[in-house]
Amino acid sequence: MAVITLLTDFGTSDGYVGAMRGVIVGINPQATVLDICHDITAQDVPGAAFVLSTAYRYYPPDTIHLVVVDPGVGSSRRAIAVRTQRGLFVAPDNGVLSYVYAREPGFEAVQLTEQRYWLSPVSDTFHGRDVFAPVAAHLSLGVQLCELGPAIDDPQRFALSEPEARSDGSMVGQILYIDRFGNLVTNVRRDLLPAGGVSIHIAGQTVNGPLAAYAGAKDGEVLALVGSHGYLELAVRNGSAAQVLGVVRGAEVRIQPSG
Amino acid sequence: MAVITLLTDFGTSDGYVGAMRGVIVGINPQATVLDICHDITAQDVPGAAFVLSTAYRYYPPDTIHLVVVDPGVGSSRRAIAVRTQRGLFVAPDNGVLSYVYAREPGFEAVQLTEQRYWLSPVSDTFHGRDVFAPVAAHLSLGVQLCELGPAIDDPQRFALSEPEARSDGSMVGQILYIDRFGNLVTNVRRDLLPAGGVSIHIAGQTVNGPLAAYAGAKDGEVLALVGSHGYLELAVRNGSAAQVLGVVRGAEVRIQPSG
Amino acid sequence: MAVITLLTDFGTSDGYVGAMRGVIVGINPQATVLDICHDITAQDVPGAAFVLSTAYRYYPPDTIHLVVVDPGVGSSRRAIAVRTQRGLFVAPDNGVLSYVYAREPGFEAVQLTEQRYWLSPVSDTFHGRDVFAPVAAHLSLGVQLCELGPAIDDPQRFALSEPEARSDGSMVGQILYIDRFGNLVTNVRRDLLPAGGVSIHIAGQTVNGPLAAYAGAKDGEVLALVGSHGYLELAVRNGSAAQVLGVVRGAEVRIQPSG
Repeated sequence: MAVITLLTDFGTSDGYVGAMRGVIVGINPQATVLDICHDITAQDVPGAAFVLSTAYRYYPPDTIHLVVVDPGVGSSRRAIAVRTQRGLFVAPDNGVLSYVYAREPGFEAVQLTEQRYWLSPVSDTFHGRDVFAPVAAHLSLGVQLCELGPAIDDPQRFALSEPEARSDGSMVGQILYIDRFGNLVTNVRRDLLPAGGVSIHIAGQTVNGPLAAYAGAKDGEVLALVGSHGYLELAVRNGSAAQVLGVVRGAEVRIQPSG
Repeated sequence: MAVITLLTDFGTSDGYVGAMRGVIVGINPQATVLDICHDITAQDVPGAAFVLSTAYRYYPPDTIHLVVVDPGVGSSRRAIAVRTQRGLFVAPDNGVLSYVYAREPGFEAVQLTEQRYWLSPVSDTFHGRDVFAPVAAHLSLGVQLCELGPAIDDPQRFALSEPEARSDGSMVGQILYIDRFGNLVTNVRRDLLPAGGVSIHIAGQTVNGPLAAYAGAKDGEVLALVGSHGYLELAVRNGSAAQVLGVVRGAEVRIQPSG
Repeated sequence: MAVITLLTDFGTSDGYVGAMRGVIVGINPQATVLDICHDITAQDVPGAAFVLSTAYRYYPPDTIHLVVVDPGVGSSRRAIAVRTQRGLFVAPDNGVLSYVYAREPGFEAVQLTEQRYWLSPVSDTFHGRDVFAPVAAHLSLGVQLCELGPAIDDPQRFALSEPEARSDGSMVGQILYIDRFGNLVTNVRRDLLPAGGVSIHIAGQTVNGPLAAYAGAKDGEVLALVGSHGYLELAVRNGSAAQVLGVVRGAEVRIQPSG
């Protein structure tokens, strides 16, 4: 029972993802193909990396995660497959697996070079269909990582954003991700928050927190809580914190211990 | 062969639904996971309730429907599971199953309290992943409703909107739902329509109907027909009745027998 | 192991596709239901035809493709099923299979008339649920084409758009499809391009090409390449060619051999 997940920026109005699903079931009709999501902002590699980090650990450890956000398709960027204790990953080597590398030490990576596991011919613009999907399907049939190409030990990774501690006991973090509800996910992990609560300064406003849940606030009010990804989040009950505060990804957030 | 459906307002740009699918196949790798849809307007409980009502009866009667539109997550609202002759349902107790209760008499409901069927820890903001998805997966493995928590007989339900009959033989109904095509679904069921046809007054316009199909009207013209959900609908052939008439959900519609 | 794909313009905010999936697994619980996509522009038959043409050949040859973009639902337009060497197709007879007919000679087609393979009653506005989905599910159980209704040899098809050769050696083509990235797919197939490269004139701009890949251009610059569908495409690296050039489907593109 092989599970293959799909995470792309291909959207749901074209046939790109449909073609990838066809390639997979054409090679392994027994594969269970499940979506993580397809509406990643076009070519947003850091966004895709974050979304992947929120989902992959909930899958069985032998799941194959196919991640195709690939602005460098057709360039010399490598195509890779990565094995961890918590899943296999097939992706372009552009940093989209950065969270995976940080959280799954002891991973193994190979560059995809063995063309017998690809479709032929390979287009210059759609390796999702012609390289990544067939490789994922072959992995689901039991092909080993080492059969796909040579080991590499230098996959591309970007530094994960971390809040900066200040000498006065405060922290300066930033907005890591904004979800469809307009919730602002900061880079401040739960364990960095002092027990006595914090004051959060963002976009000229001050918010005290964290609350336990959305329901603890009034409609329209900005609130802070530790969200489901384990990070401090700013939210507006029944509204969008991104709209109310007018901030975008990367915005600075300053955090001071209460009292 | 267990089928689990998903109906949420989580959209398709984040990892929320992807994480829920992972939880399900992590617990029951044999489950068939199928979407009803994920682009319910954020926190629109009545909209989700209506959409569920248009789909669940087409599934096998042992299907488990996982419905997560949950503005009260983290508050004291209960989490529930419901068994009917036409499917099992796992959802927050916020009225999202109101149509199910009305149409499936003799249903049984329990409050979800048995934490051994949940993930641990449980976040305060994402019970879809941590409570509802694992409970649905366990149900698909044969866990019984009574093992999930105590029976309840007072689930939250909202009154289903019904047209009001007037002494002059007319009815005053309202727009119950607007679909992606801009079709306006009224709350007037087929069996309430007189055999001789009706005049429909909405937003200052009068429309005679019902027609048998879209194809009976000219492009751009507002028409009335009995839609696929069994209710009187207003539509515009190759256009959006919502845009042409400029109405929103809840708008009043007055219906007079013809002649 | 029967695969059934779905391609519709029903979107992902209503219960239409969810109901169709339910009908399918209600008839054949073993069916694997996979999406091609559901965000075809409402009632865009040529767009759906193109998207289908980019995906179906990647599926196993016994796959059943259910295509429901059906502006004529409820009119006298026929419902059909078509068998080819590269898949079975169930669709309204409105030209949505035009590319299939052109690429799969020797296809067989029947009109769907045998109501025992449909749901009952059949709504006048949603044959996707009441006619096409149950027919696809029955096909996946082994029902033969000839059991569904009488053979027809005149399915509706539109002429596939072809570039026009001019006496000066140039070609006049047009934009066939615009994808979610704003890439402009022309109707000029790879084999029509002279070996020495071309100058492409569109919307007052001239672009030389084709390049091998997006990565060969600067950000924001319009480039030309042979895309993954085998046609000449205009694209903007990390941007939208449709926006930059301000063109829509059908726009004229003039192509001159270089030098």
